[in-house]
Amino acid sequence: MHELVEKMQNKEIRAVAKAITMVENDHPDKLSLLSDVFSFTRNARYIGITGSPGAGKSSLVNQLITHIRSKNLTVAVIAVDPTSPFSGGALLGDRVRMNQHFTDDGVFIRSMATRGSLGGLARATKDALRICDAYGFDVVIVETVGVGQSELDIMKVVDTTAVVLTPNSGDVLQIFKAGIMEIADLFVINKADLPGVGKLRGLLKDLVMMAATDNHMTAIVKTIATEQQGIEELWGKMEEHQEHLYHTAEGKRKREIQQELEVYELIREEIWRDVKSFVEQHDKASQITTDRDPYRLALEWFERWKKEGGSH
Amino acid sequence: MHELVEKMQNKEIRAVAKAITMVENDHPDKLSLLSDVFSFTRNARYIGITGSPGAGKSSLVNQLITHIRSKNLTVAVIAVDPTSPFSGGALLGDRVRMNQHFTDDGVFIRSMATRGSLGGLARATKDALRICDAYGFDVVIVETVGVGQSELDIMKVVDTTAVVLTPNSGDVLQIFKAGIMEIADLFVINKADLPGVGKLRGLLKDLVMMAATDNHMTAIVKTIATEQQGIEELWGKMEEHQEHLYHTAEGKRKREIQQELEVYELIREEIWRDVKSFVEQHDKASQITTDRDPYRLALEWFERWKKEGGSH
Repeated sequence: MHELVEKMQNKEIRAVAKAITMVENDHPDKLSLLSDVFSFTRNARYIGITGSPGAGKSSLVNQLITHIRSKNLTVAVIAVDPTSPFSGGALLGDRVRMNQHFTDDGVFIRSMATRGSLGGLARATKDALRICDAYGFDVVIVETVGVGQSELDIMKVVDTTAVVLTPNSGDVLQIFKAGIMEIADLFVINKADLPGVGKLRGLLKDLVMMAATDNHMTAIVKTIATEQQGIEELWGKMEEHQEHLYHTAEGKRKREIQQELEVYELIREEIWRDVKSFVEQHDKASQITTDRDPYRLALEWFERWKKEGGSH
Repeated sequence: MHELVEKMQNKEIRAVAKAITMVENDHPDKLSLLSDVFSFTRNARYIGITGSPGAGKSSLVNQLITHIRSKNLTVAVIAVDPTSPFSGGALLGDRVRMNQHFTDDGVFIRSMATRGSLGGLARATKDALRICDAYGFDVVIVETVGVGQSELDIMKVVDTTAVVLTPNSGDVLQIFKAGIMEIADLFVINKADLPGVGKLRGLLKDLVMMAATDNHMTAIVKTIATEQQGIEELWGKMEEHQEHLYHTAEGKRKREIQQELEVYELIREEIWRDVKSFVEQHDKASQITTDRDPYRLALEWFERWKKEGGSH
């Protein structure tokens, strides 16, 4: 068993941070580490929080942490910023939250970014979720900065995604972005003391009605995170959705699709690592010049790798 | 030679549209088509226009088209929307522009989106640029909707990238986004009749000074696209940057890095296509279940493909 996984079983939280760093940096031992990690996963609840910048996601997550802790559950938060190549720092208001929960062993907060990760940030996020799960956290929350394509991709690795909106005109437009309705398992109207909340709620209700299936309709929850309002209802709806997922064919299908995509992506990464080192060993520098046809070059290397590199 | 490339040489514009569709849909013959396309590329100027939504990019591109046509050069525009899975439609104000330039054979406008493309949208955009180049367009412009990570990636495939900003507070923040300074070959302050233009220009100047190298400093151009102001200067600066690229070691290095990345990506795609069909032929459905370790499964399939599939 990998040393870090052993340390995680001994409740050494630094091993979690180190394992996530290995994933971020795409360490060569990544797959074997993660395979060991996988054997210790115990089905933590994977929750995603996304929404436009300024929607109050950080405050909301902060309040959720407090609420989840009051239920005697432990919680890890992975804060992901697809727009930044840096990580481990003070992204997404981490410092504020760290101060509040710093002395609590039941809370772990970590930022992730695009640095190094071969398979992309969504892939690395899934690995980080499993690492937190294997350590023993009951709930793992993924928080992203916005609702761009990268954020939508990241949300595909969790079970329950909450899309946070506020009652202002800019936010309303976010709902109509391609892909938002597909990933939203529940909508949160935060800053629900602002004017326009009725209008936003009405609009969301109409959209949710149209997208509803026989046995499921996306919930809408109003919160005022800064005043701790609506947090209990929000957590309740999150738990309801998790129940729904684990007891319906729809949920089973969702997990199967995730799993299939994941295996494909992992194979792709592994091949990529192999080909890259093969080409690098064979003096690519003299081959790749700007006047040579890149398409033919790619086909040639592919054939050569299959013959010489694919069998070792 | 591929039939479509032959038709492109006979100046059949529909062949361009069809070739781009093949790239979008990741057609199996893609690499051989593109290899033929590559042999006809004649170094069209590849220009990128990016900036936050509402910065007036569409009007600006429209004015640029008119200006470029007045120089007796032909121009193709590839409008890319990474947030939308659909394409070929009326994205990014295409209809308006189509109406204006519809009867002009020297102008081609096409939307692209993420649909189907294995190698991602940046990869497909590069292929589309080459297709337009091989047909004979003198200038090819890539326009994106925003400044998210996907847009930044797309901008890496062009030679000259203009980042369009407007004098309002939201736009100023865009400059500080990770990656913007790295891709900006020139800044355009559009809507330069709005208040705050002096402040934005001052801020940009400071940033540009800090990032300047011995032989190059990013230009800043003020435009009012809706009144055709500043367009001539903008085109001039674009031409200057292209000159700079083709006559300096910096430009040569940039193209070499692009080429190297491109060959790697193409090899990766090709392998991926091969592995995917291999796994699909070997009844993956019975193997991939949610309780099986995806990391071990990936390693197993990879090894199996190398043994059995890698050599056929």
